[in-house]
Amino acid sequence: MAIDRTLEMFRSPIPGSERSPAIRSVDWILRGVGQVVFQGNWLTGLVILAAIAVNSWVYFVAALLGTIVSTATAVLLRMDRSLVNAGLLGFNGCLAGIGLNFYMSNDVTIGEWPSVQLYLYMALAAALSTVVMGALGSLLGSRGTPVLTAPFVFATWLLMFAVYAFVGFEPGALLAPGSPAPLGETAGYTAETVFNGTFKGVGEIFFQDNAVTGIIMAVGILVNTRVGALMAVGGSLLATLLAMAAGADEAAINAGLFGFNAALTAIALGGFFFVLNRSGALYALFGVVVTVFLWPSIGVVLTPIGMPTLTFPFVLTTWLFILAKPAFPALTPVEPADATYPENNYRRWKTEVLAQRETVRSG
Amino acid sequence: MAIDRTLEMFRSPIPGSERSPAIRSVDWILRGVGQVVFQGNWLTGLVILAAIAVNSWVYFVAALLGTIVSTATAVLLRMDRSLVNAGLLGFNGCLAGIGLNFYMSNDVTIGEWPSVQLYLYMALAAALSTVVMGALGSLLGSRGTPVLTAPFVFATWLLMFAVYAFVGFEPGALLAPGSPAPLGETAGYTAETVFNGTFKGVGEIFFQDNAVTGIIMAVGILVNTRVGALMAVGGSLLATLLAMAAGADEAAINAGLFGFNAALTAIALGGFFFVLNRSGALYALFGVVVTVFLWPSIGVVLTPIGMPTLTFPFVLTTWLFILAKPAFPALTPVEPADATYPENNYRRWKTEVLAQRETVRSG
Amino acid sequence: MAIDRTLEMFRSPIPGSERSPAIRSVDWILRGVGQVVFQGNWLTGLVILAAIAVNSWVYFVAALLGTIVSTATAVLLRMDRSLVNAGLLGFNGCLAGIGLNFYMSNDVTIGEWPSVQLYLYMALAAALSTVVMGALGSLLGSRGTPVLTAPFVFATWLLMFAVYAFVGFEPGALLAPGSPAPLGETAGYTAETVFNGTFKGVGEIFFQDNAVTGIIMAVGILVNTRVGALMAVGGSLLATLLAMAAGADEAAINAGLFGFNAALTAIALGGFFFVLNRSGALYALFGVVVTVFLWPSIGVVLTPIGMPTLTFPFVLTTWLFILAKPAFPALTPVEPADATYPENNYRRWKTEVLAQRETVRSG
Repeated sequence: MAIDRTLEMFRSPIPGSERSPAIRSVDWILRGVGQVVFQGNWLTGLVILAAIAVNSWVYFVAALLGTIVSTATAVLLRMDRSLVNAGLLGFNGCLAGIGLNFYMSNDVTIGEWPSVQLYLYMALAAALSTVVMGALGSLLGSRGTPVLTAPFVFATWLLMFAVYAFVGFEPGALLAPGSPAPLGETAGYTAETVFNGTFKGVGEIFFQDNAVTGIIMAVGILVNTRVGALMAVGGSLLATLLAMAAGADEAAINAGLFGFNAALTAIALGGFFFVLNRSGALYALFGVVVTVFLWPSIGVVLTPIGMPTLTFPFVLTTWLFILAKPAFPALTPVEPADATYPENNYRRWKTEVLAQRETVRSG
Repeated sequence: MAIDRTLEMFRSPIPGSERSPAIRSVDWILRGVGQVVFQGNWLTGLVILAAIAVNSWVYFVAALLGTIVSTATAVLLRMDRSLVNAGLLGFNGCLAGIGLNFYMSNDVTIGEWPSVQLYLYMALAAALSTVVMGALGSLLGSRGTPVLTAPFVFATWLLMFAVYAFVGFEPGALLAPGSPAPLGETAGYTAETVFNGTFKGVGEIFFQDNAVTGIIMAVGILVNTRVGALMAVGGSLLATLLAMAAGADEAAINAGLFGFNAALTAIALGGFFFVLNRSGALYALFGVVVTVFLWPSIGVVLTPIGMPTLTFPFVLTTWLFILAKPAFPALTPVEPADATYPENNYRRWKTEVLAQRETVRSG
Repeated sequence: MAIDRTLEMFRSPIPGSERSPAIRSVDWILRGVGQVVFQGNWLTGLVILAAIAVNSWVYFVAALLGTIVSTATAVLLRMDRSLVNAGLLGFNGCLAGIGLNFYMSNDVTIGEWPSVQLYLYMALAAALSTVVMGALGSLLGSRGTPVLTAPFVFATWLLMFAVYAFVGFEPGALLAPGSPAPLGETAGYTAETVFNGTFKGVGEIFFQDNAVTGIIMAVGILVNTRVGALMAVGGSLLATLLAMAAGADEAAINAGLFGFNAALTAIALGGFFFVLNRSGALYALFGVVVTVFLWPSIGVVLTPIGMPTLTFPFVLTTWLFILAKPAFPALTPVEPADATYPENNYRRWKTEVLAQRETVRSG
């Protein structure tokens, strides 16, 4: 379709990138933001940044700062330019920047402007995420397993755990150690629970407690891939419904906290790292269900130190499901280096299958 | 001996397995149960299931459910049929099923019949254990290191940690967060401490707080291997005595809690993954001693969230001791794919050594 | 220089080692102590032992015991003799011995003489460190990543966590579970904070809360490498200053607790595992800054069980920074097996670079 041909151009570098380092840098940043949700598309990144700005300029700045610092660290250390060009050195820094800002704020919804010390710390986390990226790439690369947002999770955890120890930092409202306790009862679920749970779930991927922001982000994914957008929204919706069925806390569901990891797992397993055929769809569904329970699970582990799960439930589930791929011939994995977007991954596989049948027939 | 030839048949598939999918399935299940204690023998599995039934029909059903679901998941995902045939896709599901049932019960000894939601959750854990099996196999396989019961431990932990977060689940009596504290004193040890510690120790491998069950299970191992049965009972006894010497809590020792991980380590290192020559015996002894202290150690780590160690002390010790094998030429490791039972592993090694000497002499 | 030629001899085995097993054993022990700070030099080991003796005979004995047991375990299991000869099987045992003794004492500065049971436990930890060494070597060796002091950390943690569970052990004053809390304020910093922070920081590598001991240890490093000594003292100083800038607890800084991990990271990254050219220096600086925050970070994780970080902040940072080396062509890594001391690593690299230029010119 014509619209597909038009949208294709946003997957390529921004026109002029080859000549102008400034345009190239903008491309790195926008694409880096898009890669948080697996979209190598600068328009996706732009829409997502706009979605963040709609909710909070504080987080907009944090996202930019993190993306720039982690990418710059990679350039300074002369990382493979093709990875940098794909935006793969930006997305972990982006999340590290917002994440530290978010958890050091008392009003987490729109955030608080960081002190100079906190800005430096956010930059340190973003830079560290690039080193963690290199380290995990070295451990997982040979197994065809992507690092996902693990560099963000580990770099942010390692630095965030330390904030209690310095008078120069004031931990935000959500950082509060406690003891896990069974959930006795919960407020009743309403249609709003489902709506907010689903769309804030998309927004919470970037720490945005705002359904409109989540909707705009879904549109940002949609400009690159219909299936990907469906997975993001569908994964978050499914997680919301399942959390309700199992009797989770209404406030947590409503805030999208069950949705964001599930949305990421759905995008990753649903067409990106596996071809979305029938087995692939069931496997992705299985992964989403597991992710729903891993969010509170990792949360319980971190409760005694009062620290957040970040996107670790998604990372852990997706790692397990991807690492296991050699054991499961029923699935059709896509090598991380070859993965583009669900429709394209599917098309290439279909072509291959047909070509093989042709060979067999004519052979 | 005649008895050995008779017993040999239980290592082969149940007669009729090639023709009848139903018999084949029964073989998978029984063998899967047997593989918890490293026995590829369907009679072992049958005796162990009987031992569980002697104590509790609740856990008998949980064991069957878990074994069936994890095996079925593997079949659906088309895992290597030789692994499925060996029962290797059943044992983690078996333990995951009983484990969740056990810790969600208030009367843990005989258990409580699960709600529908809990049954679904047990099935989810069993299915997840198959994915974890695939993932860990991909990580450890190339290092000649078996996954052991790690898929059970990780799948169960990940889902069990989450139960606090849902009104649909009622955590059992043993799930109680706390703060670790030094053991000031303990009740006096008696002959019963030693007896129960040893035989409940074998039973606790399957969460059975029952000395008779433990004794029947030891018999179940005995029908496949005398050395293996000796290791199970001897490992549990040694752990019990060592825990008493170091001054552990009488109630914990009496319940077999020091014994069950040590029994598994003794079976694994004592003749199964290493030839049981003199160095092998000392190495296994060393591993058992370490395991005795790792049970409370992992317990302390989990105390703040009130979660159980499961068989992780065994897994961790045995992983360390097997991963280290290339560094220690004093030992004679057996490749996991070649490991059958201690007597046979030893015999093959002896034959090889004699053949090499022959070659040297005649060369 | 003449002094360099004189000092060179301490890098070789003690004269007579080839003939006398007794002298050879002394060489293993001294070299093992030196390897804690990456110095394959028996004089370094001797000076460090003297430095410990200056502070506490209790810890002197613990260091010897640990070094001897871990080395003897390696010899019994027939580990590669070249590793044993390099002292690489002693340093983790050395730290495990002192570490358990330290945390089981009420007066930690000079320590308390252990009970027989504790001495056996220290020996078990040292022996276990050798198995962990073998296991980690198997996991990391193929990635050109050294095990560092991880065998000490893991073996000591695993056994130390268990001490609460036995009446035969009395946990020392520092083992106290708690809940992490923000640091509201701190005592004022003085020149003494900087001085003690820096030199006790070096001493705390071996658990010695004594600035004089730290200074003697720095001299011990100096006899093998000027750059290494500069890194140890400079890393500890930098960490002290940075902790002050970020507002850490004066008492913790003053006790050298921010310094010891940073000192080790500085030695490891600053010229030992990377050539100390301009990129290498900046990378080491980056690593030291990260380590400063990882000490309280890991501390927070362990607060609920009241356990110490040991040298894990150094291990984790250095692992991340070394694992990432294939991703960063700006750096010049030195293979662990080829790493000697900073000056020599640099010289060989310079020679290679010049030789390559020569080839290019004449080619």
